[in-house]
Amino acid sequence: MTEAMHVKIAHDIRERVRIGELAVGAPLPSESQLCGQWKSSRGPVRQALATLRAEGVITGGAGKPPVVCSTAVGQSFDTLLSYSAWAGSIGRVPGQRTLELSLRPADEADAANLNIDKGRPVVRVLRLRYLDGEPAMLERGTFVEHVGRLLFDFDCDSGSMWAYLQSRGVRLATASHVIDAVGADPVDATHLGVAQGSPLLRQQRSTRAADGELVEFHDDRYLPDIVSFTLDNNLDVRSTLVRNAKP
Amino acid sequence: MTEAMHVKIAHDIRERVRIGELAVGAPLPSESQLCGQWKSSRGPVRQALATLRAEGVITGGAGKPPVVCSTAVGQSFDTLLSYSAWAGSIGRVPGQRTLELSLRPADEADAANLNIDKGRPVVRVLRLRYLDGEPAMLERGTFVEHVGRLLFDFDCDSGSMWAYLQSRGVRLATASHVIDAVGADPVDATHLGVAQGSPLLRQQRSTRAADGELVEFHDDRYLPDIVSFTLDNNLDVRSTLVRNAKP
Repeated sequence: MTEAMHVKIAHDIRERVRIGELAVGAPLPSESQLCGQWKSSRGPVRQALATLRAEGVITGGAGKPPVVCSTAVGQSFDTLLSYSAWAGSIGRVPGQRTLELSLRPADEADAANLNIDKGRPVVRVLRLRYLDGEPAMLERGTFVEHVGRLLFDFDCDSGSMWAYLQSRGVRLATASHVIDAVGADPVDATHLGVAQGSPLLRQQRSTRAADGELVEFHDDRYLPDIVSFTLDNNLDVRSTLVRNAKP
Repeated sequence: MTEAMHVKIAHDIRERVRIGELAVGAPLPSESQLCGQWKSSRGPVRQALATLRAEGVITGGAGKPPVVCSTAVGQSFDTLLSYSAWAGSIGRVPGQRTLELSLRPADEADAANLNIDKGRPVVRVLRLRYLDGEPAMLERGTFVEHVGRLLFDFDCDSGSMWAYLQSRGVRLATASHVIDAVGADPVDATHLGVAQGSPLLRQQRSTRAADGELVEFHDDRYLPDIVSFTLDNNLDVRSTLVRNAKP
């Protein structure tokens, strides 16, 4: 499939911002210049600009020329999903040691997280993740049976489960992330080498396949000095990040 | 100023998703239907859809009809910036007790956070924030002098500093947020009523005025059971949230 013109234009501008060719505060080429450069009509150029505006990369519009307002050009779906892909994308070395890979009946939490009946088989993965050889995060993954079973043919110490599952035809399409802080429980404390109750940054994630099925739930707990999440936003657009009160 | 057509269309669809009139998984009206409904040409309709796609509200495109994929329609700039506006938006009662309001020379951290010289005057606000009457967050705000001085005419116990500063002509335009976990320091411990070292969710934020000047830096620390941040993403768009390794 060839990429739509507006996708190509947005990608090109994003890259020029990322490498600094277009600096924060710099005006973008005009719509007519972009049309000329891409031999495109106005429609795709405007769609590309709308996308970049919603991503918070540019500001302006309504008559004002667009201006670069952030170099935080965002991370792709894979980069936000996969620890291995993420570490690679920032030039660091990911690593992992598998502590548990098991088929077991869903407990109440699993059932709620995966929207399945309690007692249905699920596959559980517990891995200690490293960054440049140092412990960074404890990963708890729970998969519905037909997806999780594929992992019994995979060496979970060898790298990205995501890349492997995709190579086996699993098509992940959407994810919901919840970010909060928790105190280390006994399992966290043992494997991450910290005192119980000490602060961890938690990222929980539910991922759906292209057909809408909820296929996995993750609970990743980072040592506090390893990772932060950043977001730029501005007056023009709604942020995709939502602050929630816990129930 | 009248809103551009594509802004109106995006706003209307966002609202219909938010109130559930358009459910997750439901197809959107076709481009022609939207054009008819809004008496609009295709350009603005496509711009509106590109915005909603980049926000993660809808998926599809490239020939496939758009489908609603998330009810997390995001929060506006004000809602993500202002604790008071946020609490109000979710039907909870915000509150605050001011512990410190001072004019003092910038220390090294202030200088770095606000990109000013060390020793320049800054205004510091320390407030304990409540949710429905219970302590929820300790807020440390540091403002450049000409903005911060306005707060000496304001009762910081009375409500939103943002709303007040805006009423005094301060135009906030862009913000950068960093989210991580930290252990409570002695000041946190005293005011939030927790043990030193216990987990807190921290949101740091730098805010710029419309002319690009960095006008304030915030460090908000939430009790862990109060708040989480959520984000939905999908294959079609880059997320505006970025996972970073700490230096």
